[in-house]
Amino acid sequence: ATLPDGAEALGLAGTAPGLILRAGATVVVVLPGPPGELRRLWPNAARHGWVSEVAARNPPRNRRLLRFFGVSESAVARALEEAGGEARGVEVGICARDFEIHVDIAATVEGEDAAASLEGELALQLARHLFARDEEPIESLLLKLCIEHELTLASAESCTGGLVGARLTGIAGASQAFRGAVVAYDNDVKMRTLDVPEQLLAARGAVSAEVAEAMAHGVRQALGVDVGISITGIAGPGGGTAEKPVGLVYLHASAGQAERGRELHIPGDRTAIRDRAAAAALHLTRRVVAQSRAS
Amino acid sequence: ATLPDGAEALGLAGTAPGLILRAGATVVVVLPGPPGELRRLWPNAARHGWVSEVAARNPPRNRRLLRFFGVSESAVARALEEAGGEARGVEVGICARDFEIHVDIAATVEGEDAAASLEGELALQLARHLFARDEEPIESLLLKLCIEHELTLASAESCTGGLVGARLTGIAGASQAFRGAVVAYDNDVKMRTLDVPEQLLAARGAVSAEVAEAMAHGVRQALGVDVGISITGIAGPGGGTAEKPVGLVYLHASAGQAERGRELHIPGDRTAIRDRAAAAALHLTRRVVAQSRAS
Repeated sequence: ATLPDGAEALGLAGTAPGLILRAGATVVVVLPGPPGELRRLWPNAARHGWVSEVAARNPPRNRRLLRFFGVSESAVARALEEAGGEARGVEVGICARDFEIHVDIAATVEGEDAAASLEGELALQLARHLFARDEEPIESLLLKLCIEHELTLASAESCTGGLVGARLTGIAGASQAFRGAVVAYDNDVKMRTLDVPEQLLAARGAVSAEVAEAMAHGVRQALGVDVGISITGIAGPGGGTAEKPVGLVYLHASAGQAERGRELHIPGDRTAIRDRAAAAALHLTRRVVAQSRAS
Repeated sequence: ATLPDGAEALGLAGTAPGLILRAGATVVVVLPGPPGELRRLWPNAARHGWVSEVAARNPPRNRRLLRFFGVSESAVARALEEAGGEARGVEVGICARDFEIHVDIAATVEGEDAAASLEGELALQLARHLFARDEEPIESLLLKLCIEHELTLASAESCTGGLVGARLTGIAGASQAFRGAVVAYDNDVKMRTLDVPEQLLAARGAVSAEVAEAMAHGVRQALGVDVGISITGIAGPGGGTAEKPVGLVYLHASAGQAERGRELHIPGDRTAIRDRAAAAALHLTRRVVAQSRAS
């Protein structure tokens, strides 16, 4: 293989090469794109002298992460401003994703006090919405909570088609709480497997708060678990009506005596609606389980 | 907002800007990363004079795609070589992904005849493995086949946790064939919902060809469908033994009188094992349905 002038090889991940080169004070590290291959070659880059030089010139900043759910990005931005906003040596990033708002506070040594105060103020102002201070995914947080309280968990999914189950089982050790799911895409499956009454489907429609509730109860019963999550909605692009448009989603979480339903109107395409419905269902369930345990 | 010297704005997608600039004969188009925003601004780039100039200098090459399943990348490469390989004006790319091998043949006007002959030869040599000539995902191909033959479909999933259902329902109109899924992550759910005999689980273990078969039959029965797909395996990182290592996966497809099981040993991490198991299950089922209809 050929190397650019002045570049050094960082070794191979299978047949994928990595290399490093410098242009003045700038160091360029070239790694393969597939995450597994990138991870294999990164240590070779990290211990290269050129990378150490760059690191020495840029002392790492202390990072704080706050994750909020159930609050708008603009409300978080307002709270941030009221808390004093960015100070000297403090940089704040706000990022909205799948109904979560992430606030990332990076501080130099100089900004450390201001950052700590900002973090405290934001956490206080938005306490009701704060659910995590690290990057652990919501499905993992929900599983941990269930495992901690020795609760078993199952989902009943219509428009998400198994996404909630897939996300939960993406976490190693999910089997300690997650028992399974019923994907009831067809109304016949909702009746047959989740025991949703035919009259309810006829009277309210498959996409309704009542059917979501019946699905959550049905999966608790059918799979014999403590906590049931359900999702029913219209993911589009077809199937919407004036009364029940594309993006209308009903969630329900049922844990012990605690119950909570939610109606959502999710913008975007089929993929966005499904992904965000699954994320919202995981959040709703985490909150219901947390509250049922606290009470 | 600021623009680089000599750049022109391509408008906004929400608050995300796009811009275009040229450096000599090279034209650089800068677009937002989120696919929806990119798609909104791309037409503005496509009709910009600088892009038209680049397109005029580079007449589009005719592309042919062949997708194979159940054959190794090296066997495809060998068949390609035997068929004459790249000729003047013909470029061939081979790409392996989720058990599929994609052969992408790009030809200039000059290479058109050689490309057509290469395509014909490869299709003939690997006829048994050729399943598509376009980029339509396997879940969509399977759904179309089921809809065409008026067959209903359901999955019974253990280690994939709902991925097969999620992939199938990612396709708009899936409800014409897909009825639902049972995610039987726990053995109790396998027995309770899929009627897998307790003795079979005890004798063979949950990860076995026999349990995969029982799951596929069980979901056909439980959900009242024509075609059952099942997956059971060890996704890791824990749970493996010398006899049943991480990456061991059993699939089974059952359609009418046609049956087919498959044992896989999938390398990689939990995500790779689950994704590839789901892909392989979709392929196996497509083949079983196609054969059951052909006979």
